[in-house]
Amino acid sequence: MHSASKMREIKIFSGRANPRLAGDICKFLNIPLGRITLGEFPDGENACKIEEDVRGRDVFLIQPTCPPVNNNIMELLIMIDSCRRASAERITAVIPYFGYARQDRKDEGRVPITAKLVSDVITAAGADRVLTMDLHAAQIQGFFNVPVDHLYAAPVLNHFFQALNIPEDELVIVSPDAGSIKRAVSHHRRLGGRLAICDKRRHSASDTTQENIIGGPVEGRTAIIFDDMISTAGSICGAAKTTFEAGAKEIYIAATHGVLCGDAIARLQAAPIKEIILTDTIPHQSGHLLPNTKILTVAPLLGEAIKRIHNDESISAIFREDFGAFQG
Amino acid sequence: MHSASKMREIKIFSGRANPRLAGDICKFLNIPLGRITLGEFPDGENACKIEEDVRGRDVFLIQPTCPPVNNNIMELLIMIDSCRRASAERITAVIPYFGYARQDRKDEGRVPITAKLVSDVITAAGADRVLTMDLHAAQIQGFFNVPVDHLYAAPVLNHFFQALNIPEDELVIVSPDAGSIKRAVSHHRRLGGRLAICDKRRHSASDTTQENIIGGPVEGRTAIIFDDMISTAGSICGAAKTTFEAGAKEIYIAATHGVLCGDAIARLQAAPIKEIILTDTIPHQSGHLLPNTKILTVAPLLGEAIKRIHNDESISAIFREDFGAFQG
Amino acid sequence: MHSASKMREIKIFSGRANPRLAGDICKFLNIPLGRITLGEFPDGENACKIEEDVRGRDVFLIQPTCPPVNNNIMELLIMIDSCRRASAERITAVIPYFGYARQDRKDEGRVPITAKLVSDVITAAGADRVLTMDLHAAQIQGFFNVPVDHLYAAPVLNHFFQALNIPEDELVIVSPDAGSIKRAVSHHRRLGGRLAICDKRRHSASDTTQENIIGGPVEGRTAIIFDDMISTAGSICGAAKTTFEAGAKEIYIAATHGVLCGDAIARLQAAPIKEIILTDTIPHQSGHLLPNTKILTVAPLLGEAIKRIHNDESISAIFREDFGAFQG
Amino acid sequence: MHSASKMREIKIFSGRANPRLAGDICKFLNIPLGRITLGEFPDGENACKIEEDVRGRDVFLIQPTCPPVNNNIMELLIMIDSCRRASAERITAVIPYFGYARQDRKDEGRVPITAKLVSDVITAAGADRVLTMDLHAAQIQGFFNVPVDHLYAAPVLNHFFQALNIPEDELVIVSPDAGSIKRAVSHHRRLGGRLAICDKRRHSASDTTQENIIGGPVEGRTAIIFDDMISTAGSICGAAKTTFEAGAKEIYIAATHGVLCGDAIARLQAAPIKEIILTDTIPHQSGHLLPNTKILTVAPLLGEAIKRIHNDESISAIFREDFGAFQG
Amino acid sequence: MHSASKMREIKIFSGRANPRLAGDICKFLNIPLGRITLGEFPDGENACKIEEDVRGRDVFLIQPTCPPVNNNIMELLIMIDSCRRASAERITAVIPYFGYARQDRKDEGRVPITAKLVSDVITAAGADRVLTMDLHAAQIQGFFNVPVDHLYAAPVLNHFFQALNIPEDELVIVSPDAGSIKRAVSHHRRLGGRLAICDKRRHSASDTTQENIIGGPVEGRTAIIFDDMISTAGSICGAAKTTFEAGAKEIYIAATHGVLCGDAIARLQAAPIKEIILTDTIPHQSGHLLPNTKILTVAPLLGEAIKRIHNDESISAIFREDFGAFQG
Amino acid sequence: MHSASKMREIKIFSGRANPRLAGDICKFLNIPLGRITLGEFPDGENACKIEEDVRGRDVFLIQPTCPPVNNNIMELLIMIDSCRRASAERITAVIPYFGYARQDRKDEGRVPITAKLVSDVITAAGADRVLTMDLHAAQIQGFFNVPVDHLYAAPVLNHFFQALNIPEDELVIVSPDAGSIKRAVSHHRRLGGRLAICDKRRHSASDTTQENIIGGPVEGRTAIIFDDMISTAGSICGAAKTTFEAGAKEIYIAATHGVLCGDAIARLQAAPIKEIILTDTIPHQSGHLLPNTKILTVAPLLGEAIKRIHNDESISAIFREDFGAFQG
Repeated sequence: MHSASKMREIKIFSGRANPRLAGDICKFLNIPLGRITLGEFPDGENACKIEEDVRGRDVFLIQPTCPPVNNNIMELLIMIDSCRRASAERITAVIPYFGYARQDRKDEGRVPITAKLVSDVITAAGADRVLTMDLHAAQIQGFFNVPVDHLYAAPVLNHFFQALNIPEDELVIVSPDAGSIKRAVSHHRRLGGRLAICDKRRHSASDTTQENIIGGPVEGRTAIIFDDMISTAGSICGAAKTTFEAGAKEIYIAATHGVLCGDAIARLQAAPIKEIILTDTIPHQSGHLLPNTKILTVAPLLGEAIKRIHNDESISAIFREDFGAFQG
Repeated sequence: MHSASKMREIKIFSGRANPRLAGDICKFLNIPLGRITLGEFPDGENACKIEEDVRGRDVFLIQPTCPPVNNNIMELLIMIDSCRRASAERITAVIPYFGYARQDRKDEGRVPITAKLVSDVITAAGADRVLTMDLHAAQIQGFFNVPVDHLYAAPVLNHFFQALNIPEDELVIVSPDAGSIKRAVSHHRRLGGRLAICDKRRHSASDTTQENIIGGPVEGRTAIIFDDMISTAGSICGAAKTTFEAGAKEIYIAATHGVLCGDAIARLQAAPIKEIILTDTIPHQSGHLLPNTKILTVAPLLGEAIKRIHNDESISAIFREDFGAFQG
Repeated sequence: MHSASKMREIKIFSGRANPRLAGDICKFLNIPLGRITLGEFPDGENACKIEEDVRGRDVFLIQPTCPPVNNNIMELLIMIDSCRRASAERITAVIPYFGYARQDRKDEGRVPITAKLVSDVITAAGADRVLTMDLHAAQIQGFFNVPVDHLYAAPVLNHFFQALNIPEDELVIVSPDAGSIKRAVSHHRRLGGRLAICDKRRHSASDTTQENIIGGPVEGRTAIIFDDMISTAGSICGAAKTTFEAGAKEIYIAATHGVLCGDAIARLQAAPIKEIILTDTIPHQSGHLLPNTKILTVAPLLGEAIKRIHNDESISAIFREDFGAFQG
Repeated sequence: MHSASKMREIKIFSGRANPRLAGDICKFLNIPLGRITLGEFPDGENACKIEEDVRGRDVFLIQPTCPPVNNNIMELLIMIDSCRRASAERITAVIPYFGYARQDRKDEGRVPITAKLVSDVITAAGADRVLTMDLHAAQIQGFFNVPVDHLYAAPVLNHFFQALNIPEDELVIVSPDAGSIKRAVSHHRRLGGRLAICDKRRHSASDTTQENIIGGPVEGRTAIIFDDMISTAGSICGAAKTTFEAGAKEIYIAATHGVLCGDAIARLQAAPIKEIILTDTIPHQSGHLLPNTKILTVAPLLGEAIKRIHNDESISAIFREDFGAFQG
Repeated sequence: MHSASKMREIKIFSGRANPRLAGDICKFLNIPLGRITLGEFPDGENACKIEEDVRGRDVFLIQPTCPPVNNNIMELLIMIDSCRRASAERITAVIPYFGYARQDRKDEGRVPITAKLVSDVITAAGADRVLTMDLHAAQIQGFFNVPVDHLYAAPVLNHFFQALNIPEDELVIVSPDAGSIKRAVSHHRRLGGRLAICDKRRHSASDTTQENIIGGPVEGRTAIIFDDMISTAGSICGAAKTTFEAGAKEIYIAATHGVLCGDAIARLQAAPIKEIILTDTIPHQSGHLLPNTKILTVAPLLGEAIKRIHNDESISAIFREDFGAFQG
Repeated sequence: MHSASKMREIKIFSGRANPRLAGDICKFLNIPLGRITLGEFPDGENACKIEEDVRGRDVFLIQPTCPPVNNNIMELLIMIDSCRRASAERITAVIPYFGYARQDRKDEGRVPITAKLVSDVITAAGADRVLTMDLHAAQIQGFFNVPVDHLYAAPVLNHFFQALNIPEDELVIVSPDAGSIKRAVSHHRRLGGRLAICDKRRHSASDTTQENIIGGPVEGRTAIIFDDMISTAGSICGAAKTTFEAGAKEIYIAATHGVLCGDAIARLQAAPIKEIILTDTIPHQSGHLLPNTKILTVAPLLGEAIKRIHNDESISAIFREDFGAFQG
């Protein structure tokens, strides 16, 4: 008797963090989203029931660990446990936004390294691999011993800006601070124009900071400020203001992850920004976004990566091709 | 050079689930509660900083995993991670109420065993041992490979009822269902009186259930109904109603863990209950409790257990002595 | 060069605990039982040699851990070790009867949780999954982190009783004690008739117990008493006596696992029992059984489960279909 | 509050494999043997209850894994599990005879490496360290990642023979085969006399073997043949016969572990042996031994090692001193 | 019998990577360096023998993993294995320079994260904790689950420069690139003067880079350029050249780790540098260093940390006090 | 969507220890050697980049851990880490010569068991299985819990000697010492002739050793001395001298692993040896070998084993067939 195996049929399930993204990924892949019942018991404990057979399947669980971060992490762990105990052949935790990523080191005594803790519990629950995007620190890949596929949303963002047809001599790519220069350079290679850095210069005597622009020029140009995430928006709005004061004609800000917490919306509203470009790694309710916000989808990118993982094809090849095309 | 070791000095820290209980434990032990800063970043991620040295110390982290259960679990994990990385000699997770305990088996396919998952992540985070109380299923001890000390609140509850001086011939101990008989028998051994079981008898034809009383008699007696926890209160209020209809003079209900979620308060208010006796494993805000609720403290019991763990003394000996005395 | 893989060809081997059951499973599956040499060296140490290639195969090792329990456990571990080192693709420990299951918790200090210990060593030896039946406590599933498929012999037992064509108004399903009510209810749903519970009522003053019947009625009816296992038969024979005294016309007792140790045979012989129905999870030598004992086979049930595990098909689906048919 | 710790008080418990040895060790150490209840349930499952507190103690569990080997292994594992869950500070498995040691490699395909399996499950159960004696293969130390203290019974055996005052020019130390030369040389260094090897020479044509003596001379001398263990006694009795035929005046055989299984007693009785010297790593019932058997005790050696482990003193130092003195 | 324990007596051993540093640490602590024999067999395999008892001791193994990096890592692992098997109570791997730290992430597909690999094998070998200094990426702390104490050489370097008594208005602290700003700011806080950044500005058209100075001013001032390590010295010599061209009066460069490989010496010789300040985390042979190189010792810093770890005292407290004093 | 899987396509990569052997294996298998970039950074740290996709592939990494042993081990670990993180389906470490194998036990206190350490770190790095040849101690198989396939070069050596057509009555197979008798007997079974053992006889008084020949006769015959490895060649050259003095006509020495370190070449040159037969498990530069050295290839043997592992076919079957044929 040889196996008439169903092994490695693909199954995709979504947690409750971002079901729309999961649906769009399935549409891109032209497969139905797996049926799963998720909810809470009256005492708030998570309930989970996978509603279709996953035995021997190649399962992908889509759950960005955005706010409410603890609930989303626990739900992901519970989904992994359910699939493992139900004999899934392989479980890939698809975490488009990886929460707690900024707690990735001990800068002082007696604090946690929560990003490592989260990595450990995801592995302990039974994930066989991880698919994530634009990690706040690339070293988090090393927090895992299971394989991690790390995607970049840059092609999606670049595709949007290329479609704007801004002449190169009117464009300047701005890094919001010294730590993001590498990202800005990378976008600059694809989009052209000039490159500038928004620098917090420190003055020895007073220890006050004053932002100014290195490189450029910025004056009279359309500026695009890139960051990996917008959380309270304090830093990127400061950069926008500096860029504006340096004479930029109009300013776009762009980031993969739009956490938009605390005073973010108020700050963004007050800042001299023409358009805010985010992706859908984190769900956004249209009513809660400013009118000048545009959400680009990373569903095709994640879908393509899932297809390639499932088919044992190269992920790095994605970034040698033009994936903006998926986004039109 | 020999060690002038600070090893195994005791340190107790509280998460935010039940700081009052932690404070009362420290008062019982006559040691200060450890200083710790807990909070959230603007995006809701937990922040933790142990504010005093734990290097080489014998650390106890007090955190029942009551609602909001996921936040309380994550905070516990983060506290454990902080202490481990800060070189605590030993970390005991003190979990007076162990959430997710009812998800301890697979009754159907493709569901999680969340109680095991939580046990695994607590160990993965670095807990060296666990101290808990009245687990919903005793088998959860076996979900851990680290030592688990399992306490019973029964002496505290018994002490309360003994102080009521109900004559034995006016007392009946009631088990709210067949599954709780063992607990009722145990209280009956200490409190005397009669023993009765509230039974959901099934009728073959209609498959409807009708509760009635086995044993007793109940009529004209003061009844005490014991359970391990009161969650939505549906089952215990049904038992109270049945007991009342069987002619009980007055009815007490008593449980270790007062989760009191969903319609619990409304149900309890409507039920023919003289007094509701709970412990403080889960925090209760006085404004949110019914006037006929009395909260007994398990702080001395937990404190005594912590002291004995710290001093390598027997825990089981506690239950051979009279610990109600702590509770006065 | 692509693999002309023999991967996941199925291979079934039997330990010495129950070779007849293993043979019947293979007959059901229409595949030959794998060749293996098992024995003891002169000093009693187990010897094991798998006599056919298992490299890349999907191996099932059939070994209930019935008495002699320690020898059977060690033999199972040694078979697992042999298969792992011989590069089996996947090893499923098929444990129709899981010994040590009653030692699943610590009811007092300083005792083992042997059921967890056995689970741990089976995993440590290299089992990738477990297939078992009617665990004494369902929580034992959570003692494993590898997937556990948990079967119920109920369909086989029900099929037998349905074939007796006992009129519903002459039938009563009896639970031998309060802890087995759930099982009795489940059989009652399939077999109909009335439902009764054999209850050990406790009297407050004397603390003696007296069994009586709740529900029913029993009088004049054919009673079937269901339990998961019959060990020393003390409890089930007591229930049979109580049922008989309550006027039952004739009494069947039925259990999945017939351990039949200690005084079991003598007790069963003395009890007012018409027929004893057991399954073959544990081997029975015909000469050692009472004449009124009937052994039903679970080989088709286990065989079907093995086939489905091998083919990545749902196990829970088995229990939505009629599997009694296998048993004719 | 600082710990008034009972930590690292020593506690010694004995399994049922060799309680007399355990008692003698405790006598040597002048401490009482720990109270423990060991037995079987009616179905043959092991029961274990540690009858005194082990919390924070330095526990030694004495259990040679001699026949019945599987029962003795399981009992050891269960004792370890009990102590771990009872919060012992450190658990040392004292295994004077390590069974399954000859199954330490794969000489052919599809066989187990049971010695490694046993090592793994001892560690999985929770042993923190191992104390053993005259392992059949020294590489078994490397099967463990926990520290292993490996003792030699040679000083005890040498002390016995030195007391016989055999003149050096009348003594010959005989290795029973080529594989035991190293052991013979080591004894020869302490006892003097001549050295001989009992060699199974192979003849090319017939492939039959014929034993003869290398070295010596043996003629007219008192011969002592040393081996690590006597199992079926086939090999050592062959060596005795060869030595006898070579003219030895009288022959002693000596081994640490007297397994004495199969036809051992009959073979030894028939062989030209003056005296058989064994130790008490394995229990011997006086009625079952030949009259010319002398049992030396290793209790002082094991006791000294336990004391040194407990006190963090060097074990290797034992073998630089004269430990025969303990044996008088 | 209670333990007359030698537990946690401190023992320090040195691998062959930097025995002088180990000796200086022991001098600071006023304890003898532990005796150990290290060498190679004729085939180049490492030999190791700990020459004094480590049973129950608190062992520190000092081995920076500088070139020859693979030999030094293997020697460290072998020392750890020796100590673990010899029953050391606790093993701290003291790795003043952590090699492979720059391979801490995957910037492209199919490359290793060797820093994680090395962390894993150090843990697998049996290290209980790690003491290291100025990790190239702080996230490497999270590669370990054992506690990591992470020291900074900054106080030692600052102490040296404070002793030069450079007037604040003649001093400028220079960051060699944008990624090192944080380090420069930190030194600037202690040393005063001005702050400047050596910036590789990118020009959009040509993609060539041109270094220039941000902040300052540099002209006429004494500049100190800080980095964590000097490897091939390409980047820091470029920064020195830029700073010189910007008019600096004289230039110091300072780094914790002086790897000085490839063309480092030639580059440093050619650069306009007054003095090169390094520490002794990596050994330097005086003959191979340029005359303008000064080696500061971190032995007191490491010694103090070892003492505090041994005594369970705070490490972070070190950096709140003045440790330059050790260095005079 | 079902998987169009590339799973288990075979990929073979070579470390830098023995690329010629890897090339010959690939030629035998008729597949291209996988592209990989290996080298050192200026500071001597290993760099590794797998240059073709390994996702889902069945990867074999060929790396004998011969001198420089530490570099070769680290390179192997880094290759494993790269493949694991690049999502290889299965990684087999092919280690034709397993270095550190002689450090497989503790013969004295406080030394490492480096062979176990190396086994552990290979597993920790992520190897799923190991393929090796002629381990110095067969027990090393048990140091691994992953499957180990253990090959013997004997068929290759036997094939060479059979081709010499030495008449049986002119041939003698010589074991260089008592420990190698088993190997000699095994060759003798295939090659015929007589069997002799070169024995180091010990004299009691002087403790000097004198080699002589047991068995044979040797006089006038062609002798072949077999060993597993030739390291410093001291022992085998001594055996050759003894054999020569016993009158052998001509002497061949043969070993699987030619480490040839220390004074090996000088010793071999001085010894009365006609021809030295080695295999290519360890690379030999033709200029550095004596003219009378012949290198036989084990590439077909390893290639066949790799093919069988990949195809899930029996490895032990290889040794029941005639594999000398590959070697012509």
